[in-house]
Amino acid sequence: MEVLKRRAFSLRPPFLGSHAVFVTAKTNVTVSSLQTPCSVIESQKSEAFRQAVVNTLERRLFYIPSFKIYGGLTGFYDYGPPGCAVKVNVLAFWRQHFVLEENMLEVDCPCVTPEVVLKASGHVDKFTDLMVKDEKTGACYRADHLIKDYCKDKLEKDPNLSAEKKAELSRVLAVLDDLSVDEIGARIKKYGITAPDTKNTLSDPYPFNLMFQTSIGPSGSNPGYLRPETAQGIFVNFKDLYYYNGNKLPFAAAQIGQAFRNEISPRQGLLRVRELTLAEIEHFVDPDDKSHPKFSEVSELELFMFPKEDQICGRPASKISIGEAVSKGIVNNETLGYFIGRVYLFLTQLGIDEGRLRFRQHLGNEMAHYAADCWDAEIESSYGWIECVGVADRSAFDLQAHADKSGVPLVAYEKFTEPRQVEKLVITLDKRELGLAFKGDQKMVVEALEDMDEKEAMIMKVTLEAMGEADLHVFTLDKVVTIKKNMLSISKEKKKEHQRVFTPSVIEPSFGIGRILYCLYEHSFYTRPSKDGDEQLNVFRFPPLVAPIKCAVFPIVQNQHYEEIAERISKSLTAFGISYKIDITGTSIGKRYARTDELGVPLSITVDCISSVTVRERDSKQQIRVYVDEVASVVKEVTEGVSTWTDLLRRYPNHSS
Amino acid sequence: MEVLKRRAFSLRPPFLGSHAVFVTAKTNVTVSSLQTPCSVIESQKSEAFRQAVVNTLERRLFYIPSFKIYGGLTGFYDYGPPGCAVKVNVLAFWRQHFVLEENMLEVDCPCVTPEVVLKASGHVDKFTDLMVKDEKTGACYRADHLIKDYCKDKLEKDPNLSAEKKAELSRVLAVLDDLSVDEIGARIKKYGITAPDTKNTLSDPYPFNLMFQTSIGPSGSNPGYLRPETAQGIFVNFKDLYYYNGNKLPFAAAQIGQAFRNEISPRQGLLRVRELTLAEIEHFVDPDDKSHPKFSEVSELELFMFPKEDQICGRPASKISIGEAVSKGIVNNETLGYFIGRVYLFLTQLGIDEGRLRFRQHLGNEMAHYAADCWDAEIESSYGWIECVGVADRSAFDLQAHADKSGVPLVAYEKFTEPRQVEKLVITLDKRELGLAFKGDQKMVVEALEDMDEKEAMIMKVTLEAMGEADLHVFTLDKVVTIKKNMLSISKEKKKEHQRVFTPSVIEPSFGIGRILYCLYEHSFYTRPSKDGDEQLNVFRFPPLVAPIKCAVFPIVQNQHYEEIAERISKSLTAFGISYKIDITGTSIGKRYARTDELGVPLSITVDCISSVTVRERDSKQQIRVYVDEVASVVKEVTEGVSTWTDLLRRYPNHSS
Repeated sequence: MEVLKRRAFSLRPPFLGSHAVFVTAKTNVTVSSLQTPCSVIESQKSEAFRQAVVNTLERRLFYIPSFKIYGGLTGFYDYGPPGCAVKVNVLAFWRQHFVLEENMLEVDCPCVTPEVVLKASGHVDKFTDLMVKDEKTGACYRADHLIKDYCKDKLEKDPNLSAEKKAELSRVLAVLDDLSVDEIGARIKKYGITAPDTKNTLSDPYPFNLMFQTSIGPSGSNPGYLRPETAQGIFVNFKDLYYYNGNKLPFAAAQIGQAFRNEISPRQGLLRVRELTLAEIEHFVDPDDKSHPKFSEVSELELFMFPKEDQICGRPASKISIGEAVSKGIVNNETLGYFIGRVYLFLTQLGIDEGRLRFRQHLGNEMAHYAADCWDAEIESSYGWIECVGVADRSAFDLQAHADKSGVPLVAYEKFTEPRQVEKLVITLDKRELGLAFKGDQKMVVEALEDMDEKEAMIMKVTLEAMGEADLHVFTLDKVVTIKKNMLSISKEKKKEHQRVFTPSVIEPSFGIGRILYCLYEHSFYTRPSKDGDEQLNVFRFPPLVAPIKCAVFPIVQNQHYEEIAERISKSLTAFGISYKIDITGTSIGKRYARTDELGVPLSITVDCISSVTVRERDSKQQIRVYVDEVASVVKEVTEGVSTWTDLLRRYPNHSS
Repeated sequence: MEVLKRRAFSLRPPFLGSHAVFVTAKTNVTVSSLQTPCSVIESQKSEAFRQAVVNTLERRLFYIPSFKIYGGLTGFYDYGPPGCAVKVNVLAFWRQHFVLEENMLEVDCPCVTPEVVLKASGHVDKFTDLMVKDEKTGACYRADHLIKDYCKDKLEKDPNLSAEKKAELSRVLAVLDDLSVDEIGARIKKYGITAPDTKNTLSDPYPFNLMFQTSIGPSGSNPGYLRPETAQGIFVNFKDLYYYNGNKLPFAAAQIGQAFRNEISPRQGLLRVRELTLAEIEHFVDPDDKSHPKFSEVSELELFMFPKEDQICGRPASKISIGEAVSKGIVNNETLGYFIGRVYLFLTQLGIDEGRLRFRQHLGNEMAHYAADCWDAEIESSYGWIECVGVADRSAFDLQAHADKSGVPLVAYEKFTEPRQVEKLVITLDKRELGLAFKGDQKMVVEALEDMDEKEAMIMKVTLEAMGEADLHVFTLDKVVTIKKNMLSISKEKKKEHQRVFTPSVIEPSFGIGRILYCLYEHSFYTRPSKDGDEQLNVFRFPPLVAPIKCAVFPIVQNQHYEEIAERISKSLTAFGISYKIDITGTSIGKRYARTDELGVPLSITVDCISSVTVRERDSKQQIRVYVDEVASVVKEVTEGVSTWTDLLRRYPNHSS
């Protein structure tokens, strides 16, 4: 139960669930696109490519393992100078593309969060992974990882495996995320899995909370946590933000900030870290009207979508327009569709290959019971398809949870121009009868009864009148209970209302910035032979928007005149706010190009004459001649997206080196 | 001792020391500019002004007390939409002004930090405040706060106080930061100070570490802390960054990020918080050459400086050029002077009043023994002079500390063009004799001996030869010890060297972003009467660079044509990347102006005609007429600082409303 809860729950914090293998609980059909195991050769190729990328990233200080001189700290990375610059650029574009474009309300809340907030959100109770300990050394392991490694290893390396055993292990892999704590424990025992490092026996699995805990203030009596996501900071401020927006819906709030997850044993290098940057949007909307005024701006975009039906039936992801996806009901509503489109535009403008980007819908068993619909932007990398952005319609869950816990109503109002006569559903519960029947489960049953919508309530009323009892599926208990006639009465009353009071739905696009950056690096990386063909040179094909440094300045030889011109050009670049790198070493020009190509610098200016200079484009290696006094503004045009290199080729004479 | 250490130590993390009253230990002369007590009326005026600013800031959601619906959490604030936008603008300008302009290497390191790093930096042992506990309830108080409150209260409110007693209390206030833990305890007992809330007796004072502690990984055996500053992340990466910079000095690294301080009892609202944003620069430089190539660009700047001599002699801060300050030796070196100038330009361009900005030099007792010189940019606010930026020459302390702890050399190299014959100082210690003489203090004495420079060593050599013994001031023990001839030998040897190996000095400008923002709000705030004179309206006079929203768009009446034009203008503003606020309510135009003036929006566009619109400037309330199609680019010019309002007045016809 615990695992299922955590996983269903983990919809809230994305970038946690393991989606490498998934399956629907009902059909047990493994998803076809993932069914075919990668051939060993392909997997080796993929591994080699990743090594090439990661080596370049670490050698050029895009990333540095944190606290390296002290031996490092698993799950923590620093962004070195070019990595930090790329991150700053991506976040600036995110602000431009989302916050500015939609007039969102950006906020900035603390990382340290008191327990009550994360109790309300469910993180204190449910934000866990199952852990086992080496019974002798106390070393900790993620229980599901051990089973996964065991099954994969057997399937790949044991030639004597019976067909029956093969099927069993494949099935375990497929349903791993759905197994209960007892089932996980039983598998570990059955397969005789021991601690990988010592071969000692393992403890029974138990849930480990993934939040970093701390203590706020000097008394030691006020527990707090490092936030596992930024969203809660927005929810607790809903009332003020709604007021700030003139008490009008819809509106969106946004936040960029650090989040923290004390993973049991981080794997997958840069993809699974213990401290991460999230950029989250909470778009609050009337649950009765999820249309979006700007939907038409994205409706014709065609992108790879992977709806749940296709996953279940083993069909691959296919291209479909957002307009069609919404009109056919594949995507639940226009606002959700609008954000899917905006996320697509954001990622592809950064340089993510649109052929290796898909939007995958959550399956029934992945989705929390309250969620209306949920799509992940997944990017294909050497690790497989990586969840980088979650776009979820979370209905009223979060606001309701904080309103319940704090006692402060987090609602919106729709004022009627004149009072309306309404029929209101009245559910009166007999708490005594419910208590007698359900004891410890009473609270959950009561909540489920109170959560019934009009249709459900009327069906129950009719059933109770006809049969004397009715079934009720209590999602929070994950079981069906029997409701008897004496436990409640359901009726409709007529009332005059001046306004409608409701809890808004929230549509949440949530971006894992570190994961997007890593995938972007893989999609931007390529190698090409050096001029004399004796080595492979690395290039990142970043668009100017993303490039950590926009331009390099090289005096072709060490010479005072040329260095003065280089200095003059540098000053104009700074005045325009353009980052550059100047290299006045006597190194060959080819080597200097190679060094900057490896940082993804789009343009290089070689000072080889007093009056004009050579400007070279990174990927085509084409060159043009531009006057010294003009060159900074030419770089500015390209950097700001006003002109492309093709435009420049038309305007300036070609230069062959 | 503990207090002195902590305070001397607190030079590392700025924004902690209490500088409201300070004094030199040697002279006991209270600093004159602070000597005159504010009259009660002035203090009330100041309090009223602060209330007006803070009310506006909270009502318009510049700030929101964090987790407000749960009753808030002392020492934590959210930035609401306009506050967050101002912060984003200030940080973007910081990047432009420092990182881009100086080609600094920006990095981004985690908040969670393992113990070993903060052990090396000294934070685990010394980052403390003295705390006392209510012996019955366990409530915690900062010991120095209680004494301060007691003294101030007596001085202000007790008319029967003898002249002698007055002098005593004033003296205690003046030396509070220098008192030892025992002296603090004795004062509390002597004055009969009890717990403010209950009047219960208090425990003896003891040091409380101000870092938030946590545990990294699942085992519970790896303690970590939330970083109290961002600087350590740069120091531990020195080796890689030096390599990235082509093994050349000087270079600077920079970092913007969250820092955390678990204050015992945060006061002063927005100025003393438990989670803060710092922007820090570590400029690494050859200790033998602290000149700066761009010094001439700032040397003629005249600004208020408050050198230690002036503080001691009771002279006020005075205007002096940076060039003069460096040439007279008031500021230790050119690089330090250069950064003081750059900080001055940064703050004044944000809108800090240069008449209420001063650079105050640390006194001898404020400064750590290793620091060469230290200046704080202090901004005058309703709370008095607030330390907002620290600019310190910390010599080689930090790199040396991490090199010692990690065993990884953190050094720079100067390659000689040809080998040099050098005389090298050789100090050979007799550890046995030293151990016998100094026992537990041996380590500190040895370090002090090894740290002697050539001059000090030669003086010691001569003294030992003549007298048989010599005095040595061991700063880390804060006492003078006697060194005997048999404890060491000092000689000079000739060697051939191919390069010089040295630990760079670091010059550190460190910015408390939250404090700068708060002072900026106070310096930007004013009130003026409404048109009919019946109320006072609030205005923030933010420069366009800082303003949270650059421009407002108002259709003068609710009318489809006007709203369409407003929409068209909004779209062009978005295309230019300019944040705006559109208000299509039927509220009077005066009210709408007042609302946006209170957010500091510099320009408003009123749509009152089909072809042209009225553009109004916030502070002068002057208006011009501009064609609809031109207006967005006019706003862009002003926002980007290309044109001023005065320029526009010359180009566009004046409009009287």
